[in-house]
Amino acid sequence: MGIPFNKPFLTGDETEYIKKAVESGKISGNGEYTKKCQHFFRERYGFKKCLLTNSCTDALEMTAILANIGEGDEVIMPSYTFVSTANAFVLHGAKIRFIDSREDHPGMDEDKIEEVINEKTKAIVVVHYAGVACDMKKIMHIAEKHNLLVIEDAAQAIDSYFTFSDGTKKPLGSIGHLGCFSFHETKNIISGEGGMLVINEDQFIERSEIIWEKGTNRSAFFRGEVDKYGWVDVGSSFLPSEITAAFLYAQLENLENIQNRRCQIWHQYESGLKRWGESMDIRMPHIPEYATNNAHMFYLVCKNIDHRDKLIYQLKEQGVHAVFHYLSLHKSEFYKDKHDGRHLPWSDRYSDCLVRLPFYYEMEEDVVVDTLTQTLL
Amino acid sequence: MGIPFNKPFLTGDETEYIKKAVESGKISGNGEYTKKCQHFFRERYGFKKCLLTNSCTDALEMTAILANIGEGDEVIMPSYTFVSTANAFVLHGAKIRFIDSREDHPGMDEDKIEEVINEKTKAIVVVHYAGVACDMKKIMHIAEKHNLLVIEDAAQAIDSYFTFSDGTKKPLGSIGHLGCFSFHETKNIISGEGGMLVINEDQFIERSEIIWEKGTNRSAFFRGEVDKYGWVDVGSSFLPSEITAAFLYAQLENLENIQNRRCQIWHQYESGLKRWGESMDIRMPHIPEYATNNAHMFYLVCKNIDHRDKLIYQLKEQGVHAVFHYLSLHKSEFYKDKHDGRHLPWSDRYSDCLVRLPFYYEMEEDVVVDTLTQTLL
Repeated sequence: MGIPFNKPFLTGDETEYIKKAVESGKISGNGEYTKKCQHFFRERYGFKKCLLTNSCTDALEMTAILANIGEGDEVIMPSYTFVSTANAFVLHGAKIRFIDSREDHPGMDEDKIEEVINEKTKAIVVVHYAGVACDMKKIMHIAEKHNLLVIEDAAQAIDSYFTFSDGTKKPLGSIGHLGCFSFHETKNIISGEGGMLVINEDQFIERSEIIWEKGTNRSAFFRGEVDKYGWVDVGSSFLPSEITAAFLYAQLENLENIQNRRCQIWHQYESGLKRWGESMDIRMPHIPEYATNNAHMFYLVCKNIDHRDKLIYQLKEQGVHAVFHYLSLHKSEFYKDKHDGRHLPWSDRYSDCLVRLPFYYEMEEDVVVDTLTQTLL
Repeated sequence: MGIPFNKPFLTGDETEYIKKAVESGKISGNGEYTKKCQHFFRERYGFKKCLLTNSCTDALEMTAILANIGEGDEVIMPSYTFVSTANAFVLHGAKIRFIDSREDHPGMDEDKIEEVINEKTKAIVVVHYAGVACDMKKIMHIAEKHNLLVIEDAAQAIDSYFTFSDGTKKPLGSIGHLGCFSFHETKNIISGEGGMLVINEDQFIERSEIIWEKGTNRSAFFRGEVDKYGWVDVGSSFLPSEITAAFLYAQLENLENIQNRRCQIWHQYESGLKRWGESMDIRMPHIPEYATNNAHMFYLVCKNIDHRDKLIYQLKEQGVHAVFHYLSLHKSEFYKDKHDGRHLPWSDRYSDCLVRLPFYYEMEEDVVVDTLTQTLL
């Protein structure tokens, strides 16, 4: 079958840990493995509070509830992103103000944010595309000036950092008020489906636990802070099972190893394709100086859509499964009539021209490099 | 540690199937095991369409979206139920009209439904407490008369039936317009956390798939019905991973065995406790003639709250972990000010007096019976 786009990597301990969870007599959510995972993230990245969720979508929905998003509120985000970034807020009545991508990178153009801010604006949702940081200094400055919440959609951004001008590095997901991660099978660290909400502000901690536990104060009850627990707020069942958490923990124990291997793949792609790309007028990924590279994805930007589609087709003929990515959300069937009419040409350009190469732990990246460099468009 | 309230039962194939899912290269949602589970349910129970979800809460939220619940709409449900039954609709702006329990059973009193129906009423949410059917003939008649949607919260009701007056039996979850199931670790069939939406009406099928797949027409795309997929509606990430589905499928293959064993436990509880209960003025579960018994739960109803709490305490002293259940939602901190003021005495009575006995596949029910019959209240 050749080289698939993605293949989930098993570290070897996943099913062992799942067995242990079952033997413990507790496989519903918020058990030992959930706590172990949350502890790991707090320790390694200094996140203030972590809550595992069933998906990054779940985490985004929790941020919409925490931000009290309601009918008529406006939320700012890039158009070039996954549908869940927007849906989580639309479900609560928000109008989305979509921002164009940067010329040099699919991430949101930070300089275009302020022009859509008005008295209805509640939050800026930053998406760190391909795990590469947006300019968080600029964004936090804008948010502070206009008193807005910053939510980091860090779905692809585990183990990635933003470097401030004084040289200090902060992990993505820890800079905004709230951060959201994904452990979907295509991510660096996986649990099939899965996600996490990171809470960096004290004001949201207590309520986030309640929303996570179906609107009840169950967590406080188990800490002995209240006599009995009951319905105290809205909420949902955002917490994953211990089966999912056990799987995830086995991955986390191997994070260094996984990241090292992925970085190796990324750099072999870059060095192997640089000259070929230049000769073909195909752009390689751009990593701004303030961003680190977590080797989540290797993408190419072709000259135009025909070029891109031909490349995907020709690779497929050779057994290499490369794929395009998002379609501009402001042009989607669901949102085109609701969009405010601004043109977002760079978002459209990445919709048309970007192609993602196969990327997984056990892959043979040299085969992809060879196939590509021998491909005639 | 004595006898816990619940202990998840492993059939033995769960981790094997999880390994197979990983080896297949696909562990995100809507893969082979998800399809196998959904096929199993359709074949065995004649459900028209099934979609696995991360929880019964997720399934209930999908029904709220499918029913287009919005600000000012009213939804009818029992007060004696889990918080998610209500939250799923409150999250979308609904006002809840809580109904009292029946005298003979914690389920909703069908004769009290019509008095709260008005022009704002959108749906009746039926909860089959302990897997025992509500009077679905009566409820469907009321719904038809007032043109209301019926949503079955069948969280506890897998493999349970309603018998119509002509003797035909229909599985719970298949009678209302939509049905919701739970595979939480305390249920008969488990996947840690987990659930399923059942769609019995053609009008909801297409949209349910879209909502399930984050508001995209991805399912139609993979069936070749559309050229490319995109954002077409609201939605969320309701689908569980293949890890969860693989676990669940191992359980489903053992459904007969699990159900046989649970029925045995239930009947040994009943026969062992009948005389003792009568002498203590403690009520056994009531199964109406139109309902079957899926042996989800064995509960007792004590004379009063002191009696009940003493029973729980004394059992705990003997190492037997029995637990109370719901607190009336109309009296919760979150809803008491929003409730319309009607007294719901039977719901309060079950909140105060009901106790659930330990119930799991590998338990020693005779030990619990002996402990109870030797307990002096």
